[in-house]
Order: sequence, then C-alpha cells, then structure tokens
Amino acid sequence: MNIRFYNAKILTPAEGHSFAVVEGELWVKGNTICYLGDGSDVSEVVTGDEIVIWDREIDAKGNLLMPGFKNAHTHTAMTFLRSFADDLPLQSWLTDAVFPREGQLTEDDIYWLDILGIMEYLTSGITSNFDMYFFPPKNAQASVDCGFRTVQTSGLNNFGGSVEQVEENYHIVNDMGELSSFIIGFHAEYTTSKELMEGIAALAQKCHSPVFLHNAETELEVRECKERWGMTPTQLTDALGMYEYGGGGYHCVHMEDADFEIFKKRHLTAVTNPASNLKLASGVAPIKRFLDEGIALAIGTDGPASNNCLDMFREMFLTTALAKVREKDAACVPAEEVLYMATAGGAHCMGLDDCDCLAVGKKADIIMIDLQQPNMQPQNHIVKNLVYSGSKQNVIMTMVNGRILYEAGQFYIGFDPAEIYAKANAIIGRMK
Amino acid sequence: MNIRFYNAKILTPAEGHSFAVVEGELWVKGNTICYLGDGSDVSEVVTGDEIVIWDREIDAKGNLLMPGFKNAHTHTAMTFLRSFADDLPLQSWLTDAVFPREGQLTEDDIYWLDILGIMEYLTSGITSNFDMYFFPPKNAQASVDCGFRTVQTSGLNNFGGSVEQVEENYHIVNDMGELSSFIIGFHAEYTTSKELMEGIAALAQKCHSPVFLHNAETELEVRECKERWGMTPTQLTDALGMYEYGGGGYHCVHMEDADFEIFKKRHLTAVTNPASNLKLASGVAPIKRFLDEGIALAIGTDGPASNNCLDMFREMFLTTALAKVREKDAACVPAEEVLYMATAGGAHCMGLDDCDCLAVGKKADIIMIDLQQPNMQPQNHIVKNLVYSGSKQNVIMTMVNGRILYEAGQFYIGFDPAEIYAKANAIIGRMK
Repeated sequence: MNIRFYNAKILTPAEGHSFAVVEGELWVKGNTICYLGDGSDVSEVVTGDEIVIWDREIDAKGNLLMPGFKNAHTHTAMTFLRSFADDLPLQSWLTDAVFPREGQLTEDDIYWLDILGIMEYLTSGITSNFDMYFFPPKNAQASVDCGFRTVQTSGLNNFGGSVEQVEENYHIVNDMGELSSFIIGFHAEYTTSKELMEGIAALAQKCHSPVFLHNAETELEVRECKERWGMTPTQLTDALGMYEYGGGGYHCVHMEDADFEIFKKRHLTAVTNPASNLKLASGVAPIKRFLDEGIALAIGTDGPASNNCLDMFREMFLTTALAKVREKDAACVPAEEVLYMATAGGAHCMGLDDCDCLAVGKKADIIMIDLQQPNMQPQNHIVKNLVYSGSKQNVIMTMVNGRILYEAGQFYIGFDPAEIYAKANAIIGRMK
Repeated sequence: MNIRFYNAKILTPAEGHSFAVVEGELWVKGNTICYLGDGSDVSEVVTGDEIVIWDREIDAKGNLLMPGFKNAHTHTAMTFLRSFADDLPLQSWLTDAVFPREGQLTEDDIYWLDILGIMEYLTSGITSNFDMYFFPPKNAQASVDCGFRTVQTSGLNNFGGSVEQVEENYHIVNDMGELSSFIIGFHAEYTTSKELMEGIAALAQKCHSPVFLHNAETELEVRECKERWGMTPTQLTDALGMYEYGGGGYHCVHMEDADFEIFKKRHLTAVTNPASNLKLASGVAPIKRFLDEGIALAIGTDGPASNNCLDMFREMFLTTALAKVREKDAACVPAEEVLYMATAGGAHCMGLDDCDCLAVGKKADIIMIDLQQPNMQPQNHIVKNLVYSGSKQNVIMTMVNGRILYEAGQFYIGFDPAEIYAKANAIIGRMK
C-alpha cells in the first residue's frame, strides 16, 4: 500500500532528545517512509525514478503524526489474569493466583490472549512490544498474523526450559520475517541457577546478542542476591559475561552505585515500569540519576496482570511524575526526555533502529494523535500535552510496518474483536 | 426528556462501599432516575399514575451504566496554562508563570476557559466538579449554560476578595438553579490572614455551611503554619471554629496524628489530588490511614496547570497505586474503596447527596462505559477493570441531570468545540 498523509503536523527528531514539528506531508511506500516535508519540494519526488500511485490519501486535518510507542517490557498474554486477583499481597498473588493458572495455559491459549493484548496496544498507539512469556514462537505468530511488530525474549528459569530451547527459539523467531525478532534473555537471578545463567552468557556471546532480565525490581531480590553471591544482580550478571553485546534490565528500581557504573560501561538500557512498580509496591526507579549518568532509558507497561492496563500514556506520565516526587524536584525528568524514552529509547534497546523516529527511510510505524480534543488544547506545547495530558482517547490511527491496524476505533487485524473477547473469557473461565 | 436504557449492566450501591451489577433497564424521567431493575416488574411501573412516553430508547448493548465521577477539587479555568510552563521548580512556576498571567484574566476569559475544562470533564465521565477560582458567578454561569453541574467554593486570600464578597457569591451562586451551588471556603492558611479566616468561620456559622481549603499540601506549608501559630493548618482552622457544619481539606498530604482526630471528630472529608501532588513534588497522601480511621475520602484532579489533565481514571489508579507503594502493601486501598471515593465520596462532600449513586429517585448523572474494548476484557471484575485499566477511551456517554452532554465522541453543550479551542488559544496567545 502507498499512503499519502497531508495537512499533518509531523513530530520529527531534533537535537539531543528533543523534537520538532513539521507541518506538511508524510508519504508511505510499502512499509517505509519515503517523503516527509512541507510539500514545497514534492515535484522532485514525484518525478524521481518511480511515480507513486496512492492507494489512500488521508487528510490529517491538522492532527499529529508521530512515531508509535515502543512498549519495552511486557508479558502480553497475561491478559487472562487482568483484574483476576488484585489487591492481594505480592506473594499470595503470585503463588496462589498467578502460577497455578499460568501452568494450565496451552500454546493455543497464548495465541488468543496475545491478540487481545495486541488490540489494546493498538488503542494506545503502541506499534511494537518487547515480550517475555511462554512459547515465544506462538507469541510471535500471533503478532505476525495481526501485522504487529514484536521482539521476543526468553523467560528461562529453574521451573521450565533450557538454554538449548532458548537457542532454538532464537533462530525460529528471528526467521519469522521482518515483524518478528528475538533477543536473548532469562527471567531473573532469583529464579535462575548459576548454571543456566552461565549458559545464557555463553549463548549471547555465540549469537552476538544483548541480554535482558528482570533486574532489581524489589529490595528483597537485591538483598537475597547479595546474600547468595556477594554481588547485586547487575554485578553478578556482568561478572558472568552477559553483556558483551549489551542488553539491559527491566524495572531497575533498587540500584547501587556500582550498578550505574556497569550500565554505563556496558551501554545497557534501564527499562522502567512505573505503574507495575507502584501496584506491586516495589518502589520508584531512580530515573533522574539514569538520565544524569547518560544511561539509556526505555518504558514498558509490564504485563496486564500487574498493571493492569497496557497504556503508554499512563506510563509516560508516571515516569516523570514519580521522578519529580522522588527527587522533590518539580523540574526533573522533562517531558521531551520521557517522550524520547517511550519512542526512540525503546526502539534502540529492542534492536529496532529503523523504527525509532519519523524520517525518510525509516519503517512506517506511525500513529495519529487527535489534537482537536479538549485535553490537547490550548496548544501551548505539543510534547508536554502528550506526556502530561495525553490519553488513549487521542489515538485515532495506529500503523505498523506501513499497514493501518487501528483507525477511528476499528481494528484491522483480521480477527473479530467479539471472538477474541469470547476466547479470553473462556480461557480464564476454565480456570476459575 | 424521558430516556430508557435497556440491555444494560447497571452499577448499583451494595453493602458498605461496595458495588453490585444489575442486568436490565434504567429509566430517566426529566432529571431523575425513575426505574432501575431487571425489567421483570416493568408492567407495574408503566401502569402507574403516569405513562412514560420515551423521547429516546437506547440499547446499551451490554455496556455499563454507572454514576458519573465527581471531581472534588479543581481550578477548571486554568486550562489556559496547560503545558505552558511545566518542568519548572514550583516557586518559579507559580511566581513567574502562573500568577502574572492569572492577573490578566477577565471574567469573559474565565467563562470560555471553564467551558474547555467542562468538555474535558465530559470525555472522562465527570458529571460534576468542586471548583475554586476567580469570579465564581461567571464560572457557575459557564456550567449552567453547558448543562453541567458545578459546586463552587471561594479562593479568598490576602491578595484579593473580602468575606463580604464571599457571602454575596454564596447567595448568587446558590440561587442560580439546580446545577449550581456554593460552599464556603478560602484558599489556604499560608495565603490568608487570621482576620479573613475568622471572618470565614463566622460566615460559615451564619450560613450553616461546611468550609473547604487547601490543607497540608506541602511540608513547607505545615512547617511554616506551626511556626506562625504553634498549630497545623487543621488544628488552627478547627480552633477558629471553621467546622461547625463540617467541610474538609484539599490535598491532605502531610497530616499529623491530631489532624486525623479532628477530621474524625468534625466529620471532614480529605480530598486527594494524587497526580498534582506528584507533578508538583508535594508528596503522597496517607490514604490507607484515612480509610483505617474511617475518615471520608474524595478524589480531585486539581487544576489543569498542575496535573495537566482532567481525568478521573488516572486519579483513581494513582489513589490506590501510590498508597500501595507508600505502605509497601500491594493489598491496601482496594479498588471498590477507590471507586466509592470517586463517585459517592465526592458527591457527599460536595453536598450532592442525590447524585451519589444509581437508584430510583436519584438525579440522572450517569455515564456509559464501553466494555467491548480490550482494556475491559476479560470481565473478571468490572470494578477492578474500571479502577486499574479504565480510560477516557471507554466513556461513550455522559449524562448530567438527565441531559446527554457527550455521546460517541460528540459534545451536546450548545457550543462548537472549534470555537472553544480558538478562544482558549487566543487567551493564552495574548499573554505570551
């Protein structure tokens, strides 16, 4: 499909982590942005090697085109446990509610639950996710079938899987086409033996892959890791040789000085999950210090059972607002930094360098934001409006890889929403 | 207008602060709910004294009717400063950005800026607000003209106004019809002389009115109040005789033991404003302790310059999620308590006892929530879905006093949205 957007405001990258707004046109040819500008130089493009025939021309009516959000940490298929067992202490939530039911999930269940999560991503302008869950190839298949872009990692731990399986999944998922990729990872230090972690380090070196894991999510996790190994999770995983090709940690709430040093030295990304960290009473991550130290940041929703929604607007607001109250400094972690984390920051840590911003040659992972809504008015500052006031309600189009998957409240993913809802209710219904 | 909703799920009050879901019909006659039930006893109602002729019959398609949210603390007309000067230290935000521009506002400006805020309320399912700003009668006029329900209070302080003016506004606004009311209040201890506070106490006693004020929003405020008077703001205002007829405080972040005792003894309401308290780095309110002590709670967005959006879904999530991380207890402040605060709790502190829930005889302040959206699926628990996953995107109808003011993304308030946006941009444009 070739699609021309006109009468648009277009959010483009500017110096550092800031943004500029171009008024004009954006053209998509296949899965790629082929023109972006004010339209004054259009004739050059049209008279180039190839004349573009438009399948659609879309009047943006002054609304905003911007890069889709990258949800840099989630467990998508946990949709079945949304609102199933909240308001419980963490331990009984996990052992009594979550684990016994996850054990009953089939590959087929995961496929349908994943599609439910993908639909929710689309309503929030999320164009790709970094997913950790059971059966990565099945997970990836759901994304590919919807036209959605997913980076999988492994949740390997002592209770299931092997390094050999991770290697197999690495190749299967990376070979599933341009919408699907795999980065090596494992669940967390506190659930994984040293032997498995050593295997993961060796595999990462063999595959030249970064490594991701849950890292420093809770105080207890860090304390017990230090009791076991005399090192924090960051120090231990670095000592095991995990980060030859980079990687990073999910959560990164309870960090020590030496951990920041390792993140800098190894060029790791801290993926923050603020709503989950509140709801599970884990704490507030030191976002200002990561920024001050020049450490890369990205934002994730975590899974729908621990959040419970998959909404990057809420996560963006929390990323800055929690930093402000943590540091007692209303000026820290400004809006532009947050929007950068939620778009380019996520893309870079997920290996999606060609989806990080709107520019010619980049993949067409684009959303349209309705600025003609009261929460986007007056237009004093578009980026601040997005970060402090934005809502799913403002997302009027989500395009992934050049295909419109969500527009004006309707899904174009090849599945009937009512069927997906019925499947999800039946899966959890079976387990009640 | 007489409106019949059928095929609805209807959220009704149950024991304590919990809710039940009735499947069936809800009928609105004029501005009042005249029937609510499963439809099996419909013939009785129809053959009563009066036969109801429907102006509209609305198929709710299995979606949820629930009481509208009550935004129990806001400064609505501050919409003009949304995203104008965020990411600044609190003091320079106030003195350099906010105060000089507020000084330039005309009554006419306030009218238009208020309508912009009311539009945003409607998109978030808010059916009434508790507003503190300049020119209360003009503010009230904007609400009445839109068909929206507003309770005004006074922002009296040393820099403007008099007790006599408050008394005059009390009568003017209370006489503006059923959508408009006024409760006595003033800005805060730190901005108001003892003489003015004594005048407010005497006026409240004369009018038999509760009293509301910003109370214990910041540590500095409480410390300086104790230095001035040897008492916290709660103790001082109680000693001045403010609370003969109840009332309460906005924010209530930095509370001492004696303050909780006064709130209990005087039956005061603590109105929490979690997003604003984060964004302005004020702190996290002790919601669990208020609940444990049996103190009434309500939720407000605060003004759009300090939040920056007017969205009760975000506030509800923050109310419980921040309590969980503050208390290090994922089980505290359960979802049903939060939904009660956001609906009945707000109504009670605003003197809107006939708008607190859906029941026969109550005013028809009703919203419809789209449950056929991915963030509301599966339907493991409707109240938890609302509090943890709900979004403006789910609001498909907002009715105030029996009139539908917002439906399927369109406003029915008698004003063209484009005109309101243009007015708001022109007002702040004049001040740049």
